[in-house]
Amino acid sequence: LSIKLAKQVLKGDIQAASKLITAIENDLPGAIDGLDEIYPHTGRSYVIGITGPPGTGKSTLINALIGNYRSQDKTVGVIVVDPTSPLTQGALLGDRIRMQKHSLDKGVYIRSMATRGCLGGLAWATSNTIHILDAVGKDIVLVETVGTGQSEVDISQIADTTLVLLNAGGGDTIQMMKAGLMEVADIFVINKADLGGSDSVESEIKFILEMKKYSVNGWKPSIVITDAISGKGVDQLVEEIQIHHDFLIHNGGLAKNRQKRAKQELIMELQSSIRDFINNEIQEGGLLHEIIENYSMKKETSKSAVLKIVDLFAKQSK
Amino acid sequence: LSIKLAKQVLKGDIQAASKLITAIENDLPGAIDGLDEIYPHTGRSYVIGITGPPGTGKSTLINALIGNYRSQDKTVGVIVVDPTSPLTQGALLGDRIRMQKHSLDKGVYIRSMATRGCLGGLAWATSNTIHILDAVGKDIVLVETVGTGQSEVDISQIADTTLVLLNAGGGDTIQMMKAGLMEVADIFVINKADLGGSDSVESEIKFILEMKKYSVNGWKPSIVITDAISGKGVDQLVEEIQIHHDFLIHNGGLAKNRQKRAKQELIMELQSSIRDFINNEIQEGGLLHEIIENYSMKKETSKSAVLKIVDLFAKQSK
Repeated sequence: LSIKLAKQVLKGDIQAASKLITAIENDLPGAIDGLDEIYPHTGRSYVIGITGPPGTGKSTLINALIGNYRSQDKTVGVIVVDPTSPLTQGALLGDRIRMQKHSLDKGVYIRSMATRGCLGGLAWATSNTIHILDAVGKDIVLVETVGTGQSEVDISQIADTTLVLLNAGGGDTIQMMKAGLMEVADIFVINKADLGGSDSVESEIKFILEMKKYSVNGWKPSIVITDAISGKGVDQLVEEIQIHHDFLIHNGGLAKNRQKRAKQELIMELQSSIRDFINNEIQEGGLLHEIIENYSMKKETSKSAVLKIVDLFAKQSK
Repeated sequence: LSIKLAKQVLKGDIQAASKLITAIENDLPGAIDGLDEIYPHTGRSYVIGITGPPGTGKSTLINALIGNYRSQDKTVGVIVVDPTSPLTQGALLGDRIRMQKHSLDKGVYIRSMATRGCLGGLAWATSNTIHILDAVGKDIVLVETVGTGQSEVDISQIADTTLVLLNAGGGDTIQMMKAGLMEVADIFVINKADLGGSDSVESEIKFILEMKKYSVNGWKPSIVITDAISGKGVDQLVEEIQIHHDFLIHNGGLAKNRQKRAKQELIMELQSSIRDFINNEIQEGGLLHEIIENYSMKKETSKSAVLKIVDLFAKQSK
């Protein structure tokens, strides 16, 4: 079934893409086969990560970016990653609804993803959703996350260009440094410029960049001031993204980034295979069951149990 | 080094325990050997999970529980798990400081753990910290988390008894159901009873329990009303925990829970071994590097790459 869906995805069928994403999200058996089918045809989309503390206007900016790229006739996919517990889903729902003004446009596809409880599942699902949107023909894929490094989805590992948003109001800079957001930004976006204070935030960031000499593969992070609601500064931001894109192409950074991403993907793939293997293959009386029971009864150390399970897994996978 | 620490831990040396926990948190090489050394001597501590939405008074309740157990001459370990990004650490710091009134008591050990950025690392570190506190001789280990199932650390998978806190003020019940908190509670604690409204929250929970017929291994979740600040209801809560403990012992639930926990631990152990293997063993020109490069260049599907890596891993581990 997934392979059939994958073939439709490669023909540009967005509904098939949507179904394949759902299969991935729910970890349905065979979903991997669909991914393997489309994977050789991916790598065309440009992936832009958008992150920053809550309340910095990420969704509004995404709206503005969608508008800009659509006016250039580029198709856009949007992934909204929500690693928070359902306890706070109410707050995010509003943002999503705001983005729906583009929902009638066939050139735009918006998808939100939340954790399903399985460890690492969100990063894995996000990465694969990017491949699917790539395969279905989206020119630009925007991925919105909250926070960074410390959260389940480290956007800078996934995106070609990472935007870090902060409020013109200021006060976020020190917090951002602590959160590791300074290290991941290719472009800083100081949003809500209408509130005033963007100049002082800009000089704070410049000061820190100067002091720490941050640079990602030779790229010195740039700073753009926007007011996403009125659309001010958005053209300049899109231009800056293009400059970063060209920079990556010319110095080989794009290929390097994508190799790093491939490594991350394989790690996640392996981790989820192992988890599925243990959860699905364990049965009363079986060898796997015995190893786990022995470990549980303290008759076996974790090290020796792990070795035995890997052996079983390697044999079984053939 | 870790093995030496482990031996000291087994003699009841809390400073050695603290160092071993730090080694685990930072994923230091050899830390696993220390764990394997202590593991056969664990299983004596009773693990109580405390979860619930922010602002329900988890830390205050933990304070009250510590006081109660100490008056029974039981030693207590506390683990505060903070899966949120450093952006919100300020808020939690206050809670931790409040618990420090027990910090001069040698029978109490308090440790907070935050994510270090690696996937699944927090759950793994928490699980192993429990083993260490167990081995060092703590009778009771209290583990505080925010949220549940969807968050990185699913406390109900780790704890023997899971307490779910909510405010007497009400309004949380529907949110809690959405968050999957109803399913994991062995005991509901309606806290801040002095605010009034605990009766209506109690009848809401009873209604939902009745409707959904929740029961964990035959245990029908109970409800206790507390006012952790004044200490009202805390004795009754401790008694209720004891009743649940006895119930688990008698119907074999304790062993069953701990086997489930062992399975989870081995899954995490395997996942982190695989991640470390890929991150540490990858080198230009090596076989592992070649597999990842081929995958990155779309010359290989994830499935076949995964198989090859598992084979390498199994061989290398011997």
